[in-house]
Amino acid sequence: MTRFHGHMEVALAEARAAGARGEVPVGAALADAGGRLIAQAGNRMRELSDPTAHAEMLVIRAACAAAGSLRLPGARLYVTLEPCAMCAAAIAAARIARLYNGAADPKSGGVAHGGRVFGHPPAPHVPDIYYGIADREARALLETFFRDLRGGGGQGGEDR
Amino acid sequence: MTRFHGHMEVALAEARAAGARGEVPVGAALADAGGRLIAQAGNRMRELSDPTAHAEMLVIRAACAAAGSLRLPGARLYVTLEPCAMCAAAIAAARIARLYNGAADPKSGGVAHGGRVFGHPPAPHVPDIYYGIADREARALLETFFRDLRGGGGQGGEDR
Repeated sequence: MTRFHGHMEVALAEARAAGARGEVPVGAALADAGGRLIAQAGNRMRELSDPTAHAEMLVIRAACAAAGSLRLPGARLYVTLEPCAMCAAAIAAARIARLYNGAADPKSGGVAHGGRVFGHPPAPHVPDIYYGIADREARALLETFFRDLRGGGGQGGEDR
Repeated sequence: MTRFHGHMEVALAEARAAGARGEVPVGAALADAGGRLIAQAGNRMRELSDPTAHAEMLVIRAACAAAGSLRLPGARLYVTLEPCAMCAAAIAAARIARLYNGAADPKSGGVAHGGRVFGHPPAPHVPDIYYGIADREARALLETFFRDLRGGGGQGGEDR
């Protein structure tokens, strides 16, 4: 297994763990310019009562805090679901160099859908984007989660 | 002075305080559906080494944590500078009802500029937007800050 797939596996494991906590199963892993894993997280919105606690936001915040820096030049972000506009803008703000993206999110995505945050002049930075990595596994996780929610009379209405 | 202007005054005071801390001077105030102030903050990105610590994000996170909820139905957000795409998406996620917007941000804004986050189908929610409130005061704060930075050989390259 390549280092590349290894980090997406970490993100998928975080997504599974998030689902087990009752969160929408999305996970993220962040590696530095040398490929070393520096942060990993799954969604924690419900747990923290924080609508901004998406997996991507948590790894960016953790890595920036650890580095004592607003920017993570060279960093590579692995995420199981297309980032929303909030996360895409945070990725730009932190100057993440590469985005490895799992499943597409036609409903709430902000990279290939919606506001396409990286496609407009105000984006201070645009990462290299590798789209559709582990797409099948990432989609299966989400589909199972929402099918179970519906089957069990869950709340529904989740944003992501 | 109306209650309306009072909350924008709180946001402006937070922006001034942020500038005094060396942060880009942007402030936000959040009121509940009844108009009661429930959170106020200025930018704290540098202080926290957190590129997501924009004033809007801080008030949304604080109010959601206090309410134990991911959503703030009826809430009104007063912000001195047009929210970026990150903050606009967080506003949508939290179901903020009204956005009172100070100065425009043609460079990094995500509401009337850039990805125009609220203008795309994936936006789960679009607030009522009151644009240009206290625009002159909010712009003057920013212009002074960046003029002083340039004059003083500051870092520059700030996103907002």
